[in-house]
Amino acid sequence: MGSKSNQTKPIAGFPEWLPEERLLELRFIRVIQETFELFGFANIETPAVERNETLATKGEVNKQIYSLYRPNVPEDVEKDTGLSLHFDLTVPLARYVGQHYGKLVFPFRRYQIQKVWRGERTQRGRSREFYQCDIDIIAENSLDLLADAEIPMVIHEVFSRLDIGEFVIRMSNRKIFQGVLDHFQIIGETAEETVRAIDRLPKLKGGWEELSGWLSSELSLSAEFISTLRSLLVGESKGGTPLDRLKSMGIENESLVAGIEELETVQGFLRRVGVPEEVFEIDLSITRGLDYYTGTVYETFLSGHETTLGSVCSGGRYDNLSGSFVDRKLPGVGMSIGLTRLFSGLLAAGTIKPEASTPSRVAVTVPDRERLEDALTIANLLRREGFNVELSVQDQKHDKQLKGAVRKGIPFAVIPWHEKMSEESSVEVRNLGTGDREVVQISDLSTALGLGRAGSDGA
Amino acid sequence: MGSKSNQTKPIAGFPEWLPEERLLELRFIRVIQETFELFGFANIETPAVERNETLATKGEVNKQIYSLYRPNVPEDVEKDTGLSLHFDLTVPLARYVGQHYGKLVFPFRRYQIQKVWRGERTQRGRSREFYQCDIDIIAENSLDLLADAEIPMVIHEVFSRLDIGEFVIRMSNRKIFQGVLDHFQIIGETAEETVRAIDRLPKLKGGWEELSGWLSSELSLSAEFISTLRSLLVGESKGGTPLDRLKSMGIENESLVAGIEELETVQGFLRRVGVPEEVFEIDLSITRGLDYYTGTVYETFLSGHETTLGSVCSGGRYDNLSGSFVDRKLPGVGMSIGLTRLFSGLLAAGTIKPEASTPSRVAVTVPDRERLEDALTIANLLRREGFNVELSVQDQKHDKQLKGAVRKGIPFAVIPWHEKMSEESSVEVRNLGTGDREVVQISDLSTALGLGRAGSDGA
Repeated sequence: MGSKSNQTKPIAGFPEWLPEERLLELRFIRVIQETFELFGFANIETPAVERNETLATKGEVNKQIYSLYRPNVPEDVEKDTGLSLHFDLTVPLARYVGQHYGKLVFPFRRYQIQKVWRGERTQRGRSREFYQCDIDIIAENSLDLLADAEIPMVIHEVFSRLDIGEFVIRMSNRKIFQGVLDHFQIIGETAEETVRAIDRLPKLKGGWEELSGWLSSELSLSAEFISTLRSLLVGESKGGTPLDRLKSMGIENESLVAGIEELETVQGFLRRVGVPEEVFEIDLSITRGLDYYTGTVYETFLSGHETTLGSVCSGGRYDNLSGSFVDRKLPGVGMSIGLTRLFSGLLAAGTIKPEASTPSRVAVTVPDRERLEDALTIANLLRREGFNVELSVQDQKHDKQLKGAVRKGIPFAVIPWHEKMSEESSVEVRNLGTGDREVVQISDLSTALGLGRAGSDGA
Repeated sequence: MGSKSNQTKPIAGFPEWLPEERLLELRFIRVIQETFELFGFANIETPAVERNETLATKGEVNKQIYSLYRPNVPEDVEKDTGLSLHFDLTVPLARYVGQHYGKLVFPFRRYQIQKVWRGERTQRGRSREFYQCDIDIIAENSLDLLADAEIPMVIHEVFSRLDIGEFVIRMSNRKIFQGVLDHFQIIGETAEETVRAIDRLPKLKGGWEELSGWLSSELSLSAEFISTLRSLLVGESKGGTPLDRLKSMGIENESLVAGIEELETVQGFLRRVGVPEEVFEIDLSITRGLDYYTGTVYETFLSGHETTLGSVCSGGRYDNLSGSFVDRKLPGVGMSIGLTRLFSGLLAAGTIKPEASTPSRVAVTVPDRERLEDALTIANLLRREGFNVELSVQDQKHDKQLKGAVRKGIPFAVIPWHEKMSEESSVEVRNLGTGDREVVQISDLSTALGLGRAGSDGA
């Protein structure tokens, strides 16, 4: 029994949902898919594995990699496959575009909803297997700022449709921060450390005081720079928008000016299409590292879950998808939703609650063994009409069948009390939520069950 | 450049589709999902990995296993994870039911559409990563033959909806063959070898002659048994159905009689709900091995693809899901569609052909740089109406934008020639298939594009 019970213990870091939880997750996935397609993104799927060399192009996460070997091959066959599970969908996208370059039409809008794997320690509830939902628009040579506006439009649409509470999309432009650093001649390693420190700001217990002290003592940055930074990052009390404050400083720097202009253009597009102002915030503290993004950057926070979930959807603009796979300039902009983290966080917080454990809208029961064929006939008829139907197929007392249907959260039961079903026969329709009963002619059944029809509730 | 080109070579056995192919595969997956849900199956997903001990419960495929190790962990951390990628969805289902037994409501109808991995040699076009689409109905203690009829009803519905040509579901019952073996006192290893030989019959160049010769010379089976077998497997010329011939032999055996009765009951159910006779065939040569299935068994063949694809959908009834994970009797019946094999086979044969490479129904173009905001406004408006829309976001000549939309297979373009869009403004609607042009007021746009609305073509 020891080994038996060990085998049925969960594997740490590999989440697995009950049917009722999975039904909710599936709803999330369908909303995300539909919204991505509404914005013209085409789905791709890449294998779970990439070559080790391919994944090594993004070295930082390499230590978390899961590699594949075949333990049981004959002695003369190499056990190591040279393949590892992908740890994100960005490297696979770059490889995909490089591999299929000649067969793709640009601008290429792709979405990808797949699991990724990271061999992380599982403290802090991090998963080792989790869903990412990515979109990217990749162009050749030039990409309009329209695309930078479309990404937050997608984010806004997805989170509105998911209906999981208020959210804020915070946006900045990497060029602004780069301009400030340039202006104060902060370069190289010091610049990188500065950016990393600012990224940690929301997590610092001592807040701005701790950060500014550290920047002064450890990096010896000037009081003037720190004062500028303060005004950008935490200066709400001074009034005006962060962009107003920035402009009032009169810093003359090409990158900074370009960044402000881009950010205002994107903001203008979003206003034009009516993305509500409260969903949307300019936040110059968003840097998202120095190495990848080069323009607009986004983070998304759910109200009430800011610290527990962090950003649930992040992304930005990059100058070039990847020079290591294809010899073209391919600018792009995109974002990624960490679905598993979002979903399991909302589930744990009770923000979302599982209801039914089946997609069935109708349970057709078998009141006694003589009614098997009649039950099958009715189930078949309802399925022809488009209802998701569960038919009783276990020799249980009728009462137990109904209780099972209730436990599964099926809204209606249809009970064939009488034998030899025809269009004129009558059956009982029972509302399993209210207990209401009704006798209905089979020809009127789909009208009586109208509310139960698959998809009519938007599922 | 050497390493660059190596990285963008396909990895053998790990299929990857272009967007237009993936769009087709997605259609297959959606049809399969919808049909599974129509029959009340609830989705579950299990992790890509299981513990090595769990997978070892099904020893035969063990040599194809991919195990996970972490090459880059510190010296004091174990590299081997003790986990391997699952090679089917049957073992994970058994483990899942064992693990969550107390939280599931039986009968439990589950569907699972996931990739599985096998480290096979890639000759004969076998994939190492492929989709399986499984359904199972698992009951406690007893399971009605209604369930045995529902499985081929699902198969019939899926393959009718996929609309990929004619197909035949071949059905038998393992008890019949077991009865014949019992009657002739063929047991143990000889019985197993006999069954395996019969399973190979469709692939034998010498056909029945080769099989019967081998059974006689190698297994020393009696002429009487071989003659009975012939009559069951290849006796079409003798007239009557295989079941009629079997009954006329007057073999008295309990298992055989039970098998015939079950098969006729299931056949009766299928006739009752009008599954067409031509879709459906009793074929006593279907055995599907001795170890797992205990009752009804199914295989499905696509007309014209019998030898190249083999059975595209197989399954059957089993007495007990798995005694190794839970101490209950859980009879079940199910089937599995080998989606990747089916899909890639149909693609290779030209039975299905990719068309559009995007879900977009409308391309909103930008005739000149001054129209950026107008284009965004129109795209936004159409998306609100439910149309999947691709907006031009690359600085290209207008003609090139339209050509790109045609190459992607987008049916309509909407062109904002005039500035400052309002409800009264007019735009050009161009049918990219026929070239027809029309000037339409924005308020009438969704009517003009009616045919292009997402989902209206059943996608």
